[in-house]
Amino acid sequence: MLVVCALGGNAILPRGAPPAVDTEREHIRVAAHALAELAAEHDLVITHGNGPQVGLLAMEDEAFTETAPTPLDVLGAESEGEIGYLLEQELANALGNKRVVTLLTQVVVDGSDPAFANPTKPIGPSFDPAAAARLTAERGWAMRRDGAGLRRVVPSPEPRSIVELEAIRLLVEADATVICAGGGGVPVTVDPHGALRGVEAVIDKDLTAELLAHELGADALLLLTDVATVERDWGTPQATPLTEATVAELRALALEPGSMAPKAEAACRFAEQGGFAAIGALADAAEVLAGRAGTRVTGR
Amino acid sequence: MLVVCALGGNAILPRGAPPAVDTEREHIRVAAHALAELAAEHDLVITHGNGPQVGLLAMEDEAFTETAPTPLDVLGAESEGEIGYLLEQELANALGNKRVVTLLTQVVVDGSDPAFANPTKPIGPSFDPAAAARLTAERGWAMRRDGAGLRRVVPSPEPRSIVELEAIRLLVEADATVICAGGGGVPVTVDPHGALRGVEAVIDKDLTAELLAHELGADALLLLTDVATVERDWGTPQATPLTEATVAELRALALEPGSMAPKAEAACRFAEQGGFAAIGALADAAEVLAGRAGTRVTGR
Repeated sequence: MLVVCALGGNAILPRGAPPAVDTEREHIRVAAHALAELAAEHDLVITHGNGPQVGLLAMEDEAFTETAPTPLDVLGAESEGEIGYLLEQELANALGNKRVVTLLTQVVVDGSDPAFANPTKPIGPSFDPAAAARLTAERGWAMRRDGAGLRRVVPSPEPRSIVELEAIRLLVEADATVICAGGGGVPVTVDPHGALRGVEAVIDKDLTAELLAHELGADALLLLTDVATVERDWGTPQATPLTEATVAELRALALEPGSMAPKAEAACRFAEQGGFAAIGALADAAEVLAGRAGTRVTGR
Repeated sequence: MLVVCALGGNAILPRGAPPAVDTEREHIRVAAHALAELAAEHDLVITHGNGPQVGLLAMEDEAFTETAPTPLDVLGAESEGEIGYLLEQELANALGNKRVVTLLTQVVVDGSDPAFANPTKPIGPSFDPAAAARLTAERGWAMRRDGAGLRRVVPSPEPRSIVELEAIRLLVEADATVICAGGGGVPVTVDPHGALRGVEAVIDKDLTAELLAHELGADALLLLTDVATVERDWGTPQATPLTEATVAELRALALEPGSMAPKAEAACRFAEQGGFAAIGALADAAEVLAGRAGTRVTGR
C-alpha cells in the first residue's frame, strides 16, 4: 500500500518552541519513530511544513544586512535541504536501514492564479509600522497586521503539477521512503518557452500532499498534525471530536484557517476521488491509517 | 558514457563576488549551459562546492543572535537545497527538459580520521582576536589566522561511503541528470549501533566526486573550475600550462592547497583506477571531456 503523509510544521516544531535546530532535531526524532511504524509496513512518501524554519532563515537573512535579501523560492529550497536532512537521518536511524531519500521538489503554480492578487500567507518576522512601511516602499512587500506587529504576506497559489514526479515514482517503486515537496514544494511558474522560474509565494503543503497522492495513485493520504482529530464547533466550549466526517460535513465546518482548514480541504479532495483520507496526530500515525484514531473523511 | 563532474565553488560564484543569490543565479546559468552540452550527450552526475554559500549562511546565522548557532551539518544540508535548486532549474531550462533532480546526500566519514585532531578547512566569517578567543572559549571552535582576522577551521576528513548511492544509481539508470553530494556531502559518522550522526566537518568535494565516480563505475571524472589547466610552477613567472600529466608528475607538483591540490589528488585517484580524469575550466567542459582542453591525467 502506498501512503502519502503530510507532516504539519507544528508537529515538527511545536507552537511557541524556539526555532532552533536542537529543538527541531528532538521533535523530528519523535516524528521519525511514529513514521517508521508506517514505513516498515507500507511504501511511504512524506511531505512536511516549513513555516518555523523559513521564518528563522528569513530572520537570519534580515539580520545580516550586507547582502540583498534572499528570495523566498531559495529560502524554501534551503529549508527542504535542512528539514529533509534531519528527517531522513532520524527516519533511517529509527528504521535501521538507509532506504530513505530526500528529493528537492519544485511545484508548478499558475502565474494567473488569483492568489497572486491577494497575498494571504504570513511569513518571516514581525515588524513595527515604520519598518513595515519602509519594506513596502523598498521591496514592494504586502504587509498585514499579525498580533502586535506587521508581517509580510505572500500569495498562496494552488499547486498544479510536481516537476520531479517521475523521479519520486521511480524511487517509491524501488522501495525507498521518499521525503519530498517540503514546505509545499518550491513554487515555480512555467514561462511561454517552457522554462521554470521561481516565484515569491508559498504553496500550502497539505494541498501539495494531496496532489502528490493523487498523481502517484496513492492508497491513503494522512494529514498529520499536533491535534488528535478535527473538532466540530472548534474553539468553543461545545467542541466535539469527529472520528468520521463526510466531505460535505467537513466542508460545512468552520475550521482554523491556515491550519485545519487546508488539511480538511486536502482530505476532502482525496476522499472525493475514492482514496482513504484522514487527519490526526502524528504520534498516532499508524492508528490513524488503521482508522482507529483521528478523523476519517469519507464519501462525497 | 557516465560522466561525473565536480563544479568548483569559484566556478559557481567567482572569487571576490558578493555571495548574493542574484550573482549566484547568473553564474549558475552560465555553468548550466556548459553542463547542458554534456548532459545532452552523456549520463551526467554533478557535484558542486558550497564554500561561499555556507559562508553566507554562517554569517547570517551569526548575525541573528536570538537562537543557538546552527551546526555545520545542517548548514551544509541547507546549501545542498539552495545550490541544488538553482542548478537543477537552470540546467532543466538549458536542456529544455525536466529530467534533472537533486538528491540530498550524506557522506560517511571515519570518526577516527586523523583530520579530526587537526582542523584545516577555514569556514564562515573572519573575527577579530577578542571575538575569536570568546568563540573558542564558548563553543570550542579552533580558530586560525586568515588574512587580517581569524576564521574558524574545521576538520576535513576523507569521504568513505555515500549513504544515498543506490538512489543515485537508480536515477542515473533512469536517464536523469543527478545533482548530489553538494559541498562534498553532509558529513556523518556511523555509531556502533549503525545510526548516522552529523559531524562538524567539511568533506572535500573533489574527493567525494572521485569516490562517487568510482562507486558508480563512471567512465570519466571532470574537475571543473575557473582556470583552464593545471600549471607547472604555478604562481611563478615560469608557470606553464599542462595539457597532460601522469599521476606521478601531478603528485610531484606544488599546487594551491585547498583548491588545485585536492582536484589533482581526485584526478590521480581516478586515473589510477584506469578512468578518464581531467581538470579544466567549466566553460570548456565538453572540450575537456574530449581531451581538447584542460589537463588530462593519465597512467600511474
